[in-house]
Amino acid sequence: MKNGRVAVVGVGLHPFGRFPDKAVEDLGREAALEALRDAGLSYKDVEAGFLGRVTQLGIGVGQRVFGELGLTGIPVTNVELACASSSRAVMHAADLIRSGAVEVAMVIGVEKMERGMLQPGGERSYQALLGLTILPGAYAMMARRHMHLYGTKPEHFAKVSVKSHKNAVHNPYAQYRTELTLEEVLNSRMIADPITLYQCCPTSDGASAVVLASERRARQLSNQPVYLTAWAGGTPIFDPDEPGLSEGPTALLARKVYQAASISPQDVGVCQVHDAFSPGEIFTIEELGFVKPGEGGPFVWEGGTEITGRLPVNTDGGLLSRGHPMGATGGAMITEIVRQLRGQAGPRQVADPKVGLVQNAGIGGVNVLAFQV
Amino acid sequence: MKNGRVAVVGVGLHPFGRFPDKAVEDLGREAALEALRDAGLSYKDVEAGFLGRVTQLGIGVGQRVFGELGLTGIPVTNVELACASSSRAVMHAADLIRSGAVEVAMVIGVEKMERGMLQPGGERSYQALLGLTILPGAYAMMARRHMHLYGTKPEHFAKVSVKSHKNAVHNPYAQYRTELTLEEVLNSRMIADPITLYQCCPTSDGASAVVLASERRARQLSNQPVYLTAWAGGTPIFDPDEPGLSEGPTALLARKVYQAASISPQDVGVCQVHDAFSPGEIFTIEELGFVKPGEGGPFVWEGGTEITGRLPVNTDGGLLSRGHPMGATGGAMITEIVRQLRGQAGPRQVADPKVGLVQNAGIGGVNVLAFQV
Repeated sequence: MKNGRVAVVGVGLHPFGRFPDKAVEDLGREAALEALRDAGLSYKDVEAGFLGRVTQLGIGVGQRVFGELGLTGIPVTNVELACASSSRAVMHAADLIRSGAVEVAMVIGVEKMERGMLQPGGERSYQALLGLTILPGAYAMMARRHMHLYGTKPEHFAKVSVKSHKNAVHNPYAQYRTELTLEEVLNSRMIADPITLYQCCPTSDGASAVVLASERRARQLSNQPVYLTAWAGGTPIFDPDEPGLSEGPTALLARKVYQAASISPQDVGVCQVHDAFSPGEIFTIEELGFVKPGEGGPFVWEGGTEITGRLPVNTDGGLLSRGHPMGATGGAMITEIVRQLRGQAGPRQVADPKVGLVQNAGIGGVNVLAFQV
Repeated sequence: MKNGRVAVVGVGLHPFGRFPDKAVEDLGREAALEALRDAGLSYKDVEAGFLGRVTQLGIGVGQRVFGELGLTGIPVTNVELACASSSRAVMHAADLIRSGAVEVAMVIGVEKMERGMLQPGGERSYQALLGLTILPGAYAMMARRHMHLYGTKPEHFAKVSVKSHKNAVHNPYAQYRTELTLEEVLNSRMIADPITLYQCCPTSDGASAVVLASERRARQLSNQPVYLTAWAGGTPIFDPDEPGLSEGPTALLARKVYQAASISPQDVGVCQVHDAFSPGEIFTIEELGFVKPGEGGPFVWEGGTEITGRLPVNTDGGLLSRGHPMGATGGAMITEIVRQLRGQAGPRQVADPKVGLVQNAGIGGVNVLAFQV
């Protein structure tokens, strides 16, 4: 894969939170300018653009956001894959570079959210007709199944949130930077048993940007390139004989990515997973092969996913406390992995990671991406 | 580009028109099944999916449409580029194949439209604030400019619609299959001078599907492959010194495509262009280099773009009479080019074309694609 290597050369974020006075164009522009500065590139170096967004569904959102950076005439494609939109957009940008069509591409992810907006949609939403109208319900059912099968405890799930909030204190871009105790998490309002309020990601505004380049171009830049060495996406397949314990085909995709990148789970030094609700971290570290099925709860409980643990997970606070502006989330996960692999994560820096993994899940799709220095 | 050749191996449509009793899932499934039959493939052969749509903006439309075909777990990405969504999706599918990641990919384009839905959007729509709220107005201003610069006449624009309606009579998938006289077109209700009602594309429902494959895979199939030999996309750049006479950077993209495919405009035997309003055909054949600037009107008037003319354009009726379900349009253009290049266009067949060109324009983006047998 020597000629085909794709590098991430710049990453940037607009802080996550609530920004009622800013337009998505502002959020996207600020993240993009940070990523371009990080890369040491100017916008005219970018040959193709992708925008990930979910609720900003007017026509041509990407055209307006990229238009804030200049009118260079590059193609801009708007991509939607629910909460996994911008990581999927990064995959397509990487495909484009690997195909040889361009040397530099940029992905911007943006979102300004409103409360209560996420309902399963469509003219044939069997799930909604059957009463499964919100996502915490789906996560809670999977959590209950995990508890039944493996003896996982509500405290295990709550610990995920305690750990992630602790990490977010050290992330200036995070929406919530306040530590929570286990009692505070467990005693917050019940949303869908066993998931309490502080185990749910917030409603967020924010933006992320990722600049990708060919290996040749990356070597001309001053920053240490971080290589995107393998990526795979897929759609959940519901097996009626064994109801899934996560949102999707993470285990299958992870095996593909490990093989393509010639790595094993033991090589991964830092990981970002889709913790829209706290059980997500436990399901996902099992599916990614870091621990055996059923061992996720105790592993988290014993600190295995803390920054100082065997497998640091969601070092930036994750969706739970960094925030989850849907279209921006994948790019934010990648931003954190890149900063960790470069050793730029400051007080939340993991000790010398060489391989980073991103798992980003949305309604209808999951992406797994491996990064290496 | 020998290893990198990408083939279109299957095309399919759901008829364009008004289908209030069908869901987008029905429209998309029917088009997809026709394309798979055409390719001699089954859905389990498809390794990646893309969905182009504009107004069907709920989360995961592509997941629902592809879900109608089976649950194979392939990644499905939703793409939006206004009226050029599905041709852009075809480009990304082709990039994916050229990168070596997959051998077979499918693009489905769908749309169910409502009247009066197209308004320039966004929190900063300067155009809307200035009163340019609908697209016929923009086309009319460009048409007026063309008349002023070159002496183009309203009859020239009207002739485009007469020709396209004549072609659509022979297209069983077309929304309008009735011939119109020049007088009927000119005397229909004025929408934005010089554009009358019968020079505007209709509000449409419909779907298209395109199956793409690597050259290696294409050679194993029984159908004659049609190669997608070059493709380029871009974003309009408004030059205040010379207001554009089309929706975008068509001329620049065409030059890129001709060079990449080692062809010239003289090689093109059949062409599909974005005639959302009748002046579009005249602007575009000039920008694509088939005639000099200002010669488009007389060329159309003298029959140059008829099926028997020097450069047959919109042989299936174009947006004006085949219809324009936005997300499906690019795939429909490609479908017609593929059928023409294979000699399968029946009573609207052009005499032995070897090269076909598609120009698909949307708010915020233009795509030009070259096809060859």
